[in-house]
Amino acid sequence: MSTASQDAATIARTANAIGSLDAAANSAAEARQGLLTKPPGSLGRLEALATRIAAITGHERPRLDARLIVVVAGDHGVVAQGVSPYPQAVTAQMVANFLRGGAAINVLARHARTRVRVVDAGVATPLPPDVSADPSLLRLGLGAGTADITHGPAMSRPAAERAVAAGIRLLDDERRVEGLDIVGCGEMGIGNTTSAAALIAATTGRAPVEVTGRGTGADDETYARKLRAVERAIEVNGPDPADGIGLLAGLGGYEIGVLAGVYLAAASMRVPAVMDGVISGAAALVAATIAPGAAEYVIAAHQSAEPGHAAVLDRLGLEPLLDLGMRLGEGSGAALGISLCVAACRLLDEMATFGEAGVDNSDAAVAPEA
Amino acid sequence: MSTASQDAATIARTANAIGSLDAAANSAAEARQGLLTKPPGSLGRLEALATRIAAITGHERPRLDARLIVVVAGDHGVVAQGVSPYPQAVTAQMVANFLRGGAAINVLARHARTRVRVVDAGVATPLPPDVSADPSLLRLGLGAGTADITHGPAMSRPAAERAVAAGIRLLDDERRVEGLDIVGCGEMGIGNTTSAAALIAATTGRAPVEVTGRGTGADDETYARKLRAVERAIEVNGPDPADGIGLLAGLGGYEIGVLAGVYLAAASMRVPAVMDGVISGAAALVAATIAPGAAEYVIAAHQSAEPGHAAVLDRLGLEPLLDLGMRLGEGSGAALGISLCVAACRLLDEMATFGEAGVDNSDAAVAPEA
Repeated sequence: MSTASQDAATIARTANAIGSLDAAANSAAEARQGLLTKPPGSLGRLEALATRIAAITGHERPRLDARLIVVVAGDHGVVAQGVSPYPQAVTAQMVANFLRGGAAINVLARHARTRVRVVDAGVATPLPPDVSADPSLLRLGLGAGTADITHGPAMSRPAAERAVAAGIRLLDDERRVEGLDIVGCGEMGIGNTTSAAALIAATTGRAPVEVTGRGTGADDETYARKLRAVERAIEVNGPDPADGIGLLAGLGGYEIGVLAGVYLAAASMRVPAVMDGVISGAAALVAATIAPGAAEYVIAAHQSAEPGHAAVLDRLGLEPLLDLGMRLGEGSGAALGISLCVAACRLLDEMATFGEAGVDNSDAAVAPEA
Repeated sequence: MSTASQDAATIARTANAIGSLDAAANSAAEARQGLLTKPPGSLGRLEALATRIAAITGHERPRLDARLIVVVAGDHGVVAQGVSPYPQAVTAQMVANFLRGGAAINVLARHARTRVRVVDAGVATPLPPDVSADPSLLRLGLGAGTADITHGPAMSRPAAERAVAAGIRLLDDERRVEGLDIVGCGEMGIGNTTSAAALIAATTGRAPVEVTGRGTGADDETYARKLRAVERAIEVNGPDPADGIGLLAGLGGYEIGVLAGVYLAAASMRVPAVMDGVISGAAALVAATIAPGAAEYVIAAHQSAEPGHAAVLDRLGLEPLLDLGMRLGEGSGAALGISLCVAACRLLDEMATFGEAGVDNSDAAVAPEA
């Protein structure tokens, strides 16, 4: 296990390594868009998306061959407040489902030809022996679920740093071993929409009622308990909205901390990080609180049906690519978003130019864009 | 070449063969959605999409392995009115680009692992010999572009029937030779947004100014000429909004007629037809005017930036899956839409059920949906 000072140093070094978007690659990609055999602007947001990925990666014609979705699982002590219709054991059961390939994220990742890395950041229920021994599961051992945030902090400050640093290290390892061109940020954890809502309210200053949703499907009574839990968690922990590690320690989850580290690492490596739903969004907020520059490396895959997600998008200045009413998490929206990123970059890279194709552009070149 | 009476008979037989959606497959798919390892409804519109495809195909767990995009090219006499910033020769040049694999639709079809069939329905400029001789090009020889619709009908009534029947036959051939589980409807033709706007205005009763857009990027003067051309075409041809073949003959294009046939054939075969932009939409309107039941087999891939497209969606009662500001045509939006249809059907087919995965659903099963 890493020491507390190593963790803090890893986070600081990573945050400091985050640079600006590459203006030259941005301009070169934009110029190339104008040469491709299509009316200027006719591919709509796919053009801006590819140009953004050029600016992120520093490549005029970026290729997104090495694709990864990280699915990080963690449990939440706040389930004691009756905030979810599902029992806590479902977190561990879904980890098993991820490893066997039967969950939505497995199907969507296969569809997007994207590798999935399943991470146990802090699952409370013991995993079945075959799952626990599966070498494709990364076990971080950060804790057996967080403490109940309605009574005190979710975890200690060193534990929060350990989670973020673990996310940074796991992305370093993935890149070294498998290569990495784009990463999607998914999660699983019964109770984690409660933690995410508290983090979003505390970071953005929005009222809990604005950012607390029904998650996996809370009924009216469950929702009322959930909203009270979010309000109490903020009162009890009184977090400083400018202190990313403090927010995470007070209100977070282990999976949220690990994902915050993934966002920081991706930004420091100039790798686009594709945000999924409301928990993935809360993690992006934590990352952007630690290092504001990280937000520029985030691509919002979709607009989640969870109300807190809109507050995240607004705060980070992101416009989602898809709006399909999804609210599953796991990285399910991120998988679809990665597929759109790949499509956008392939268009930029593979389309013929007017010159190459012998297509006449002389009149249209001077016509103003619609 | 087919005779006029054969064409009319082919169209009538196909229209009569269009049945209702399969209520049993619809119910079975919906029931299966409730058993999969996810909170009910959490995959949002992907759940309704897969259920719709089940109802279209009649299969509880539809597989979309044989995927096709038809890209139909045709020229338009109305270009004499100065309605486009691009010269007419670009239609033929883009057909060559499609065959060489350099256009946006080629890239997006590769991305969606979907076959492309390029069809010359009525290109005016002679194709280069290598393009003309390419066996992968289907040459229908319907005419060297339409007549100018501001002076009279685009084509004769028998020619309109020939175009629709050709679309039906080409889809029959594709299914017999390659198999067919889903088809996307794309097109190319300088001037064809003018024809599409006239068809949409005449069919829906909207004012030309509401449904006429800037197409490939018309400047203000070009746009003014285009709008006048749409208005004049409707005055001159006085089409009956209930007569699909009459609308097509008066205002259409050969590629629009062929695509109308593709929609009719797809509906008669219980194959989902994925609509692209405004021209693809005008063809769907023609098909639905000939056989109203055809609209139930259409899936709207995206919301085009062209204003006439919203009128089509409204008339056909369709909600688009994507809204990315695209306005290229070629089937580019349809390719992305096909990819979403595949994802939705794979989720329905490949996800584990709660029972299979051993995931606890006892409490949540009785919780009301958010």
